[in-house]
Amino acid sequence: MINEKLPNKIVIIGVGLIGGSIALGLKKRYGNKITIVGFCKDPERSKLAESLRIVDKIIKDIDDILIDTQLIILATPVQTTIHILTKLAKTIKHPVLIIDVGSTKKIVCHHAQKVLPSHLTFIGTHPMAGKETSGFEAAESNLFRDKPWIICPPKKADKNRIKIVKNLIKILGSKPVIMDPVKHDQLIAWASHLPLVLTSILVSSITRQPEWRNIAKIASTGFRDTTRLASENPIMKKDLVLTNKENLLTALKHIRQEIDIFSDFLTQGDDKAVFTYFNRAKLERDNWLKLAQF
Amino acid sequence: MINEKLPNKIVIIGVGLIGGSIALGLKKRYGNKITIVGFCKDPERSKLAESLRIVDKIIKDIDDILIDTQLIILATPVQTTIHILTKLAKTIKHPVLIIDVGSTKKIVCHHAQKVLPSHLTFIGTHPMAGKETSGFEAAESNLFRDKPWIICPPKKADKNRIKIVKNLIKILGSKPVIMDPVKHDQLIAWASHLPLVLTSILVSSITRQPEWRNIAKIASTGFRDTTRLASENPIMKKDLVLTNKENLLTALKHIRQEIDIFSDFLTQGDDKAVFTYFNRAKLERDNWLKLAQF
Repeated sequence: MINEKLPNKIVIIGVGLIGGSIALGLKKRYGNKITIVGFCKDPERSKLAESLRIVDKIIKDIDDILIDTQLIILATPVQTTIHILTKLAKTIKHPVLIIDVGSTKKIVCHHAQKVLPSHLTFIGTHPMAGKETSGFEAAESNLFRDKPWIICPPKKADKNRIKIVKNLIKILGSKPVIMDPVKHDQLIAWASHLPLVLTSILVSSITRQPEWRNIAKIASTGFRDTTRLASENPIMKKDLVLTNKENLLTALKHIRQEIDIFSDFLTQGDDKAVFTYFNRAKLERDNWLKLAQF
Repeated sequence: MINEKLPNKIVIIGVGLIGGSIALGLKKRYGNKITIVGFCKDPERSKLAESLRIVDKIIKDIDDILIDTQLIILATPVQTTIHILTKLAKTIKHPVLIIDVGSTKKIVCHHAQKVLPSHLTFIGTHPMAGKETSGFEAAESNLFRDKPWIICPPKKADKNRIKIVKNLIKILGSKPVIMDPVKHDQLIAWASHLPLVLTSILVSSITRQPEWRNIAKIASTGFRDTTRLASENPIMKKDLVLTNKENLLTALKHIRQEIDIFSDFLTQGDDKAVFTYFNRAKLERDNWLKLAQF
């Protein structure tokens, strides 16, 4: 351990944008004091991650995780994380702290509780950072700076282990937020999953129009920024919406109702109501942005 | 005229983000060879624009437009543009080219045709550039670089005048696109007005949730970027949606249908359909972005 606060033998499973950015952030701070071992499903990608020095070493199989490993970070799509937890439960015989960084928490935390033996501690986490480009080529050591990073510890979690996770998050410049996994999934449906889905819905609807080729010629930075999330990894997106289905369906229902409210104002040509609608949304977003400070 | 291609006595009515950025772009290229006179409704703002050298001079009233003015640029919200066109029709006695830069074209172009005497030529235009911050303090000489700028000339427009407008647009680094005003409004409902509205709908829906305070703590860059347009000037937004009502209502109807399609996939837990949905949207957006080159 470095200062007894952070493990220095770490395995990252899934060296993509998030896993790669964690590796880069930790290496930037600790250099050779820390060893980061990476695993990608694709052996070619694993070798490339090693040759680009995103990680120190690669392993070819999850069975190859060494006995001196202190921390395993699962940075895979949610469904993959669930499979890997089941596998780790059978293969890892020494005490290890395991965290994930996926976008839904209830299903993953419950599964970990169910399958992991007592020498394996699982703490679910979720960094609120991302990019529309995926893969370790897009990784950045500063990706998490000033962003919230949610921690969902099990009810009877050891305080020292929560402290280790908090330290890891702080080292990466991020802001730890403790939250119950069920509450996490409810809130994240609004803060993240709804925007992720609505951008794909917007792109789908526009690109299905017979006039799309002409619309494409005049679409500009507004369309680009509004739809940024539509370019995020579709496997990751599929997993997170399917594991947070009920909350997301509720949010989509609200959006439909809100479209109806606005469409009514528009149909009536209600100048004042339309202005008030836009003005309120602007003030709310501007206030949020001031507090968020990024 | 500079090289007979660009007027050198220009009046900009509405020195905000767009008007200010045009002024800065032209001054950057031509310096003292060009005189830009500005008018803002608010006398204090007018003085500030002059003292910050956004424009060379200010006028206190539209009646003060001098007889040597060759080009008038209307950079005001759509409804204001309509009022000013009526006023210019009565006050300007010498030949002038008038353009606007508003976000709907049919109503403005039709109004101009109706009210302007023959010595005043109107060509509607629409630069596809914007920012969530408004006012000339946010203006940038490079705002229009590489972006499309739509021109809607009247059917019997003089070719030389269209050429002047095209040159103005090219000088600002933008790409002129000729289009019929009715077609413009149809396409722009999708390319711009729908994203502008949907972002406000998203913000409204989220901020109305009883849990908004907690959602706000974990919302991050995805929410920020998706909702950027919700912070745009609400008066401008109100005017453009009310003057392009029918097209926008059609687009909102399509979005509702698309939400239903996606919600059905989700309800059924259809793994393959959800992945294909996200993947298709990603590929379409990525292809568009490659071609757009900004």
